[in-house]
Amino acid sequence: MNFNGELLERVERAQLALQGFGADALLVSTNVNLFYFAGEVINGYIYIPLEGSATLFVRRPKGMSGSNVVYIRKPEDIVPKLTEMGVAMPSKVAFEGDFMPYSEYCRVANCFAGAEFVNGSGIIRSLRAVKSPYELEMMRESGRRHDMVYSQIATLYSKGMSDLELMAAIENAGRKLGSLGIFRIAGNSMEIFGGSILAGQNADAPSPYDFALGGAGMHPSLPIGANGTILEPGMAIMVDMGSNFTGYMTDMSRVFAIEGVTDPLALKAHQVSIDIQSAICKVAKPGVEAKALYELAYSMVEAAGLTEYFMGHNQQAGFMGHGVGIEINELPVLAPRSRDILCEGMAFAMEPKFVIPGVGAVGTENTYIVTSDGLEKITHFPEEIQIIG
Amino acid sequence: MNFNGELLERVERAQLALQGFGADALLVSTNVNLFYFAGEVINGYIYIPLEGSATLFVRRPKGMSGSNVVYIRKPEDIVPKLTEMGVAMPSKVAFEGDFMPYSEYCRVANCFAGAEFVNGSGIIRSLRAVKSPYELEMMRESGRRHDMVYSQIATLYSKGMSDLELMAAIENAGRKLGSLGIFRIAGNSMEIFGGSILAGQNADAPSPYDFALGGAGMHPSLPIGANGTILEPGMAIMVDMGSNFTGYMTDMSRVFAIEGVTDPLALKAHQVSIDIQSAICKVAKPGVEAKALYELAYSMVEAAGLTEYFMGHNQQAGFMGHGVGIEINELPVLAPRSRDILCEGMAFAMEPKFVIPGVGAVGTENTYIVTSDGLEKITHFPEEIQIIG
Repeated sequence: MNFNGELLERVERAQLALQGFGADALLVSTNVNLFYFAGEVINGYIYIPLEGSATLFVRRPKGMSGSNVVYIRKPEDIVPKLTEMGVAMPSKVAFEGDFMPYSEYCRVANCFAGAEFVNGSGIIRSLRAVKSPYELEMMRESGRRHDMVYSQIATLYSKGMSDLELMAAIENAGRKLGSLGIFRIAGNSMEIFGGSILAGQNADAPSPYDFALGGAGMHPSLPIGANGTILEPGMAIMVDMGSNFTGYMTDMSRVFAIEGVTDPLALKAHQVSIDIQSAICKVAKPGVEAKALYELAYSMVEAAGLTEYFMGHNQQAGFMGHGVGIEINELPVLAPRSRDILCEGMAFAMEPKFVIPGVGAVGTENTYIVTSDGLEKITHFPEEIQIIG
Repeated sequence: MNFNGELLERVERAQLALQGFGADALLVSTNVNLFYFAGEVINGYIYIPLEGSATLFVRRPKGMSGSNVVYIRKPEDIVPKLTEMGVAMPSKVAFEGDFMPYSEYCRVANCFAGAEFVNGSGIIRSLRAVKSPYELEMMRESGRRHDMVYSQIATLYSKGMSDLELMAAIENAGRKLGSLGIFRIAGNSMEIFGGSILAGQNADAPSPYDFALGGAGMHPSLPIGANGTILEPGMAIMVDMGSNFTGYMTDMSRVFAIEGVTDPLALKAHQVSIDIQSAICKVAKPGVEAKALYELAYSMVEAAGLTEYFMGHNQQAGFMGHGVGIEINELPVLAPRSRDILCEGMAFAMEPKFVIPGVGAVGTENTYIVTSDGLEKITHFPEEIQIIG
């Protein structure tokens, strides 16, 4: 591979950010960020100097070619190779300190004897928050496939199913449409399989993970989401299955119900969620603070008297939206203390949700792209509660 | 929760190991090891002192109770809580240095001002390598379900399918039988979805990951395994799908072929793999070096003149087996330089595989438990090449 076109632009944006950060090199080491900069996951590192060409130091796979590819056996080979190539030694290396394990840090930092190592995770996080036109098109494509999968849910449901059976059927529909399956989440202790379906009271089970909602899950080794609840009339059934068809994810939640939902509180809360989505679409644009979006949503929730159900009931999440891209939970964060400001090219999911005891989770989640003058919605499946069965 | 029964034994084993290691506390922070010690994934830490009770410091989920549970908001709360509880401050804390990110390490180590932090990942890795009777029963159960899934493969296949279509059907069969879906792998840059199917020439595509074999995968963001190859007569179709039904995994690979495999080299190599499994079953028992198993296998491969195809062809893996439990790639490692010695209660997968150009991957993989006098096989599906279609 070579750093050209789209990939060269990413390297150049990183170099500009390095300048602002005051470091003279960036060392990329995690799979998601190797994919971001190299266009593919490799086993190795990318070294981006403040000026000049980036180098891909590869352990595996065999057989890569290109002027930017240098094979290594171990991280200790990087510095001698840079010296051979005539690259000046850095004095301050930004590295992925939020993700690189301590022992790998010790080993790698030791290779660059004399250089200061500083946590530059935030640099890459900020770069990735603003997508290129190519990346946005990848996201739109995941959104289109996401819609196609959700359009099949009413057909996939059959009477007597459990949440897990419906989930397996939705996963299978996604895989048949080309889903990569893998669900990537920013954050070290985050894990999930496929996504989440919350039916009835299970929506109120607290989870250890930092997702919007919980659910007991199938097993204590993965306590999140569907737990084997048999789907019954009167329950709200929230489907929040991931969509990764292009290396870029979209996030969408919709509520299904057998014969519909009749509980007035649940119906009201669902409508408030739809109204929040509309209200935010009217004000969100480049320059707007992400926390202002949270505050607008929260004021609507307060006005409706629904604060005790917002973003959970037994356990409430402290945010109502997050950036989406190669992973979910990217920047911006839509939360009270967020310091993020919307920029053109950002993509985020907005998920004002409510847990109504005895009924389940209601509300909607959509993924949006920030355009020059507002938001472009890229998850189009109808937002009303969908009757199945 | 409380540390009693099975969980108390794990804590006590950790305390014994701490003594040998010369540290006076162990701080557990990763999901897999929180699950190992607490019996469930939580968001927080477990603090295991050299003597006395372990404490579960929990951020989420809400609502846990038990004499060992202490709620915290942030890691900075741990030390004041320990002081309140009358626990003596440690002077040397073993922590998960191979997994804890650098920035979290800085924050947590700073909380224990004055204490030395040392990488204790190896302690937990060694503890987990030797399973309790309860854990072994969880593994046997995953093995039984694994067999049930593989028994359906011939029925799931239909003419004209791609590797991806067959894979989606196998995943779905697993989920219907209660698979948790999630595939956990020890090692920071390891990722996979569901497992791997390698059909024909795709088996020879090198991958960045440290798995036994490769495969191009569907997308550069996850370059491993099935790549959309249409299944055709003459190809070896190696199915290596994960099985996680109980929080404990098993690993099994089998070869399928439409109308069978006729290539003499492929047939010979497959038989050598079966012979290696048998030969190793005769010699493996507690006290035997893991590297001796690799050496025995390699000598049989050499005698058969098959070294250039062993564990890959374009790119060859340097091991032929690995421990299995909560994750794959646990200890012991069956590789030339392994220093692991078999102990009663260990569980490992042995996967002597070959990639035959133009045909695909052949060989078998089984999961075994080390008993007091040998090996117990826990993956029972027939090892001969299975004819489908």
